[in-house]
Amino acid sequence: MKSRILTGIVGAALVFVVLLFLPPIVLNFAMAVICALAMYELLVTTHHVTHRGVLAASILFSACTPFFMLGESRMPAFMLLLGYVTVLVLFQIICHQSLKVEHTAFAFCMSLIFPVAFSCLAYLRGASERDGIFYVFLGLIMPWMCDMGAYFVGTFFGRTKLCPGISPKKTVEGLVGGVVVSVGSSVLAAWLYQILWLNSHGGTVSLWQVALLSLLCAPLSVMGDLFASIIKRQCQVKDFGHIMPGHGGIMDRFDSLLLAVPLLYIVVQYFPLVY
Amino acid sequence: MKSRILTGIVGAALVFVVLLFLPPIVLNFAMAVICALAMYELLVTTHHVTHRGVLAASILFSACTPFFMLGESRMPAFMLLLGYVTVLVLFQIICHQSLKVEHTAFAFCMSLIFPVAFSCLAYLRGASERDGIFYVFLGLIMPWMCDMGAYFVGTFFGRTKLCPGISPKKTVEGLVGGVVVSVGSSVLAAWLYQILWLNSHGGTVSLWQVALLSLLCAPLSVMGDLFASIIKRQCQVKDFGHIMPGHGGIMDRFDSLLLAVPLLYIVVQYFPLVY
Repeated sequence: MKSRILTGIVGAALVFVVLLFLPPIVLNFAMAVICALAMYELLVTTHHVTHRGVLAASILFSACTPFFMLGESRMPAFMLLLGYVTVLVLFQIICHQSLKVEHTAFAFCMSLIFPVAFSCLAYLRGASERDGIFYVFLGLIMPWMCDMGAYFVGTFFGRTKLCPGISPKKTVEGLVGGVVVSVGSSVLAAWLYQILWLNSHGGTVSLWQVALLSLLCAPLSVMGDLFASIIKRQCQVKDFGHIMPGHGGIMDRFDSLLLAVPLLYIVVQYFPLVY
Repeated sequence: MKSRILTGIVGAALVFVVLLFLPPIVLNFAMAVICALAMYELLVTTHHVTHRGVLAASILFSACTPFFMLGESRMPAFMLLLGYVTVLVLFQIICHQSLKVEHTAFAFCMSLIFPVAFSCLAYLRGASERDGIFYVFLGLIMPWMCDMGAYFVGTFFGRTKLCPGISPKKTVEGLVGGVVVSVGSSVLAAWLYQILWLNSHGGTVSLWQVALLSLLCAPLSVMGDLFASIIKRQCQVKDFGHIMPGHGGIMDRFDSLLLAVPLLYIVVQYFPLVY
């Protein structure tokens, strides 16, 4: 528990430094590292993909995803995707006897869905000149506070198992607690953003909109978490890694972002949270 | 052989009608049908994915891909992708005991790479007001003429096996013949476009650029074909279907488009073939 909290504090400090004191592009590079590490964990730690070429291509492609939305054009991302698919097809043809199509497909699927989801944090930063940083904080607070709320509420009040076949420790009480803590923390963060920044710089954050969005994102973050648990279970590994003492691997910490952050990214395109 | 030629003539007539006499959006809908059928073949005929929900979501998503590039915004495609991933994750959680992650990943991978590749025909149509139709014809001529050239040259002159472990009938002589026929047909089509249309309406097609592009696309179309053969071989099916007498399924006819047409689409964005 001690190392878990310590790692959390160091992580939070890193997030603050990258978001508040460094140029926006640093976030893209930070996410590139996280995507590459996550893919390493997902493909190597699970022993699911063993072909070195497929691994290298997948990790490289994953590291490029945070840069997909930088320009106006869709073409660079499309070119990268085509290049990646071409390389995978080439390896599949060369090693058709030892490499199973479903393993290549697994590498492709994982290298697309998780890195693009994580990269939505970088896309969020670029989505608004003024409120980008606030959106990124929300994108981290919603899933992580849901995780934390579920963990503590579940530990103290958990009675009813949520899905014992996937994650035996998760409880319905924990889920409810996670959603409540996630909504509460998001609204608190929005309120702090209002009084500490917007009041002096202009703009009004819509608290009810933040609450509603968080209410949608919190269950989605649990779904991301459960999906990663299924992968671990079916690949018979306990944790994705040990890079973050007390938390496990990068994937163990970021898996809950899978569906929540992309939803946040899409919603703020159409309904900005700050007016 | 007779049914093969007859089906080919009917198919070609259909292509001409859709491209020359019907509004552009009809091509999008035609590709939607082809993508849906192709996915049905890839997932159902191979017996690789049996979960009805995953199948329905994958076929529905595939049918939407031809419309991805219609507007200026990236958001609708991104929303559809997130919706599709969310549905897959949900099914994976509900049926975690019977549904393997690698089968879901296979469905996701196939529903993305083949339909998006086929949809590039529709994207090509929209890529240029004047030359879109010519680009679509090129996108069909390059891979299909390569297939046909390889088939006939291979039948008469084939000596050296190309990759007996994947496709025992393919020969190196056939490959060379296919590339030559593909380049020749593309240049011929471009020349016809020049004298039948551009000479009276203005514009010059770059024949050497068409030849060079075709020289790149022809081997890529063989790679697409081989990749589909590996899928068939690993899933132990002979053909993807019987919808096109003499040709097999939609996938058997369209598999060679996998890498060639997306490359064509990307290249004409940066280097239009007609000035």
